[in-house]
Amino acid sequence: MSSFDERHMVARKTGVFSRIRLALLGKPIPTARAHHERLGPLLGLPVFSSDMLSSVAYATEAILYVLMLFSVAVLRDQIWITIAICLLIVIIATSYNQTIHAYPTGGGSYIVAKDNLGETPGLIAGAALLIDYILTVSVSVAAGVAAIVSAYPTLHSYLIPISVVCIAIIAWANLRGVKESGTAFAIPTYGFIVCMIALIGFGVAHLVGGPAVAQQVQAEPGTIGSENGHLFLFVVLRAFAAGCTAITGIEAVSNGVQAFRAPEAKNASITLRWMAAILTFMFLGVGYLSLHIPTLKLYSTSSKQYMSVVSQIAAHTFGFGSTFFYVVQYFTAAILILAANTAFSDFPRLTSLMARDGYLPRPLARLGDRLVFHNGILLLAIAAGGLIFVFRGELDALLPLYAVGVFTAITLSETGMVRHWLKLKGKGWATKAGVNALGAVLAGIVTIVILGTKFVEGAWIVTVLLAVSFLLFKLIKGRYTAITKQLEIDDEIPARPTRHTSLLLVPRVHKGILAALEYAVLLDPTCRAVHVVINDKSLPETRRLWEKYGEGVPLTILSSPHRSLIEPITNYVDEMLEEDADQVITVIVPEAVSTNFWHKLLQENVAQQMRASLGRRPNVMVTNSRYFLR
Amino acid sequence: MSSFDERHMVARKTGVFSRIRLALLGKPIPTARAHHERLGPLLGLPVFSSDMLSSVAYATEAILYVLMLFSVAVLRDQIWITIAICLLIVIIATSYNQTIHAYPTGGGSYIVAKDNLGETPGLIAGAALLIDYILTVSVSVAAGVAAIVSAYPTLHSYLIPISVVCIAIIAWANLRGVKESGTAFAIPTYGFIVCMIALIGFGVAHLVGGPAVAQQVQAEPGTIGSENGHLFLFVVLRAFAAGCTAITGIEAVSNGVQAFRAPEAKNASITLRWMAAILTFMFLGVGYLSLHIPTLKLYSTSSKQYMSVVSQIAAHTFGFGSTFFYVVQYFTAAILILAANTAFSDFPRLTSLMARDGYLPRPLARLGDRLVFHNGILLLAIAAGGLIFVFRGELDALLPLYAVGVFTAITLSETGMVRHWLKLKGKGWATKAGVNALGAVLAGIVTIVILGTKFVEGAWIVTVLLAVSFLLFKLIKGRYTAITKQLEIDDEIPARPTRHTSLLLVPRVHKGILAALEYAVLLDPTCRAVHVVINDKSLPETRRLWEKYGEGVPLTILSSPHRSLIEPITNYVDEMLEEDADQVITVIVPEAVSTNFWHKLLQENVAQQMRASLGRRPNVMVTNSRYFLR
Repeated sequence: MSSFDERHMVARKTGVFSRIRLALLGKPIPTARAHHERLGPLLGLPVFSSDMLSSVAYATEAILYVLMLFSVAVLRDQIWITIAICLLIVIIATSYNQTIHAYPTGGGSYIVAKDNLGETPGLIAGAALLIDYILTVSVSVAAGVAAIVSAYPTLHSYLIPISVVCIAIIAWANLRGVKESGTAFAIPTYGFIVCMIALIGFGVAHLVGGPAVAQQVQAEPGTIGSENGHLFLFVVLRAFAAGCTAITGIEAVSNGVQAFRAPEAKNASITLRWMAAILTFMFLGVGYLSLHIPTLKLYSTSSKQYMSVVSQIAAHTFGFGSTFFYVVQYFTAAILILAANTAFSDFPRLTSLMARDGYLPRPLARLGDRLVFHNGILLLAIAAGGLIFVFRGELDALLPLYAVGVFTAITLSETGMVRHWLKLKGKGWATKAGVNALGAVLAGIVTIVILGTKFVEGAWIVTVLLAVSFLLFKLIKGRYTAITKQLEIDDEIPARPTRHTSLLLVPRVHKGILAALEYAVLLDPTCRAVHVVINDKSLPETRRLWEKYGEGVPLTILSSPHRSLIEPITNYVDEMLEEDADQVITVIVPEAVSTNFWHKLLQENVAQQMRASLGRRPNVMVTNSRYFLR
Repeated sequence: MSSFDERHMVARKTGVFSRIRLALLGKPIPTARAHHERLGPLLGLPVFSSDMLSSVAYATEAILYVLMLFSVAVLRDQIWITIAICLLIVIIATSYNQTIHAYPTGGGSYIVAKDNLGETPGLIAGAALLIDYILTVSVSVAAGVAAIVSAYPTLHSYLIPISVVCIAIIAWANLRGVKESGTAFAIPTYGFIVCMIALIGFGVAHLVGGPAVAQQVQAEPGTIGSENGHLFLFVVLRAFAAGCTAITGIEAVSNGVQAFRAPEAKNASITLRWMAAILTFMFLGVGYLSLHIPTLKLYSTSSKQYMSVVSQIAAHTFGFGSTFFYVVQYFTAAILILAANTAFSDFPRLTSLMARDGYLPRPLARLGDRLVFHNGILLLAIAAGGLIFVFRGELDALLPLYAVGVFTAITLSETGMVRHWLKLKGKGWATKAGVNALGAVLAGIVTIVILGTKFVEGAWIVTVLLAVSFLLFKLIKGRYTAITKQLEIDDEIPARPTRHTSLLLVPRVHKGILAALEYAVLLDPTCRAVHVVINDKSLPETRRLWEKYGEGVPLTILSSPHRSLIEPITNYVDEMLEEDADQVITVIVPEAVSTNFWHKLLQENVAQQMRASLGRRPNVMVTNSRYFLR
């Protein structure tokens, strides 16, 4: 924290609003503080993996749910789909490993695509990622709430309010500056990993030790699809697409290589490998167990009887209502909330990058300025909350939107890396290009599969948002380019003012005004002063005091028939400019500063009104000279 | 309109908000324009009389309603109460006539009471008047809507929405600047007067010509009071108090003497006399007729069958549904709306007066500044609308609150006039003092009667509001006095900065920055420039361009690890102040000005954030140097 901020807080402590803000948001904390402590793989894993690992909570269920809608008979095919996705995870993780080494300063999809493929692919990747961060928040929170609801079914009626409150709490924590230590991430992440390993271990042991019972999956009546000649391949592809939500979050490490301690690339690489290994293990484990639970039931999240697949595995293994059953649910909810939380730090970071390139409003680039950072967080919270609201907090409904963005970004990033190796041609470039090309082709196919199979259910929304965002970026860039052109320095030198006059506003004569007078004289020894008569009674006193303390500066008295302060001054300034167009005028407005909120209401805020009124005159500046009240 | 305003509007015409504002509020019009054309009695009457004359619409009914609640048998006593009130009107008008001559610059109750009786009575009068302006709006609108509802009974269910819309329209018209000519006032006022004279004339002719029928007043069943031993005197006093609402608005002329053309006092005096004469005639006429309509029914305004007494007289005289019946209703509604409208110009004028004396926030004194004027109008509209809402738009419920304030103010004003003559002792001072003393005593008695008889029904609310307002005025004055004391110039001369340094922010190098540089150099030839690195890529270009165009001003490059613009600059300014505490620093923030609303979103508003961050440092000023974009 800068020394100023501390001083500032102390100075403002007395204000009512400041006190409320202090209570709600705490002492202001620089947003980037988390990066002061560089991470090793042990803390890097929890910081970067929550998004990816947490998808274990819903990916298996998503596959099963699609298959079930076709036929109970094909549910067993789930395990092959899971295995295929795990292979995909390994391949994509391997190629992202190459990105880490190629972009040790951080190689997000936006940067890799823009650097190697050009503006359009870069912008599409950027748009895809931004949309995906919003969906990460919505989906993770919806899944976290689903885990809670699985443990406490009576809460099902409060799906939307619980989700919205969760988002509000995460946003609030981020406004306060939550990322103070990797430890805060370590507990829920490692807790979740330990839980899942224990669950899978016990579950498998249970199966081996227990009696061999044929599985009789029960599905909700009426939702089972017809077993007629529907294209089986389409269903499998759609189930695959649904399961691909497990891969979301894989790019997190390559985005944040700079957060690791030296050797950055190596530490990041270790973390990514561990992440992929743990995810693969958990995903396969949950997939295997879900096929061997005789009483598995599949519900829509909109159903009042909803229990997640993971919670049913936990209930079957440890017993519903047992302590460990609840522990699994809590840690699942916790890592999902954490996943939502990471989106809150990634979103403003990406908007900052894109703003620096002129594709988003430039103020967004200044991530370190509290106002800008806060706006980013609020924007994300409102968008994610809006999605929760529109989709009634139902995970089922939100999932089809997810993963389109991620795979679009992955495809572009991988393709970019292929271009990168082709241009660079370093040691072993052909192999590296081959790995990335494989990743690109697979990710491209997955993108097409997701789009094709989920288009009607929601992927079309993401497509539209992508197109709109892309156009918006281009529009913004266009405007900035136009401005740059307008402001380009050319040979014609415009007529510039050669003299400076300062004009002091004198509402009354007191200490504060005398300080402003000092400033006015410092700026311009031949400065002028004006007094607008609002209160006739005080005029003689004003004259008398000015005579005495005005340091010889001439005081012009302006009458104001309509009791306006602004009008006579703008008129006077216009007269001054008519007399001598070759001058620049600084209007100095003395302003009282109160620390107390109620007292502030009694103060005039003339400078702002003056600025608005004089705003179109190029050669007039408005400054307020402040004096401080107890 | 000042030439600037016109230019300003043209310049801003392209903005979306400006266009909406232009459509809603029209071209900005100085609020005081109405006073450019001075009024004779012919136009003065409509401008100042609507509040007073319009009370004919409800005063008779108010008397009858109170009497009816006691007993139908005493309804005939109404005429005696009406005659008593008319006498009171004559006496009070006569004494206000003296005020006009004594205070030709405008003698509102606040001024007269404060000048002659001191601060406390002045503030009570001021508070009473402010509360009364709010009630004038509520009561007049409620009565106007009652006139409409009398003509169109099906509208009764929409009492509140119609009233609120009326207030909104009046407020909107005032924000637009409605008072462009006395003619706008003349039509409804003279229309109403002609209507009432015609109504009374035809009504009396009807009675004389028609068959002599004994009146059989019908009242709502169940609301008739018991005819037991209730104190008859109390009922009469209460009915009298209810009728005194007819006198509200009598002080309008003496408030606005300056609006008349020379000889101001004489013209005002003529207007006041005519006003009183017309009111007396109409009030007596309506009172007389109401007693001679055989089928008169008295309803609460909350009743669905409600018809006002005036509308029943019109219906009896011309037939319900006849053209002239509707004409009477329209003009009644019109003058009532006009009465509400006058409160919208009186309220801000009084707050301006009180603000000049330091009893209300000082910015309110600047009536001529649009922002201030608009806030006053919105405040009044919200307060009056709130009352309508709380009292469900029912005139019955609002009337008990009315008149307490007016009579408190009249009493204080008359007492003040007595003091005035006793101090001044001019020609015939004894007679004049006597007239005012009579007015004071009578008004005082009426105040006590109103308070005593209407206290429970609502006068207590006004009493509480009076006390709260009074305390608020004292608090505000206390704060201003404390500030004045703090800022009083004493002998100790504080250490003042002796050097001035200007510090230019250079985000990029372009034409706009070069203009800002010219200004910075004009202010301080040894000025400094700083560039905060938000975008590393553009740094070399910035350096190169500054080398070329920077006019030799040294450019300090500040790194910003957290990508903050504000933090590095505040730190740098602090370093400068540490180096040399004896200087004053002007931070010059170049700022792009766009005319287009959407473009504005893309612009940085750094100056304001800078001002907030540097706000507590006494020797640092922030100025924005603007450059203009197409």
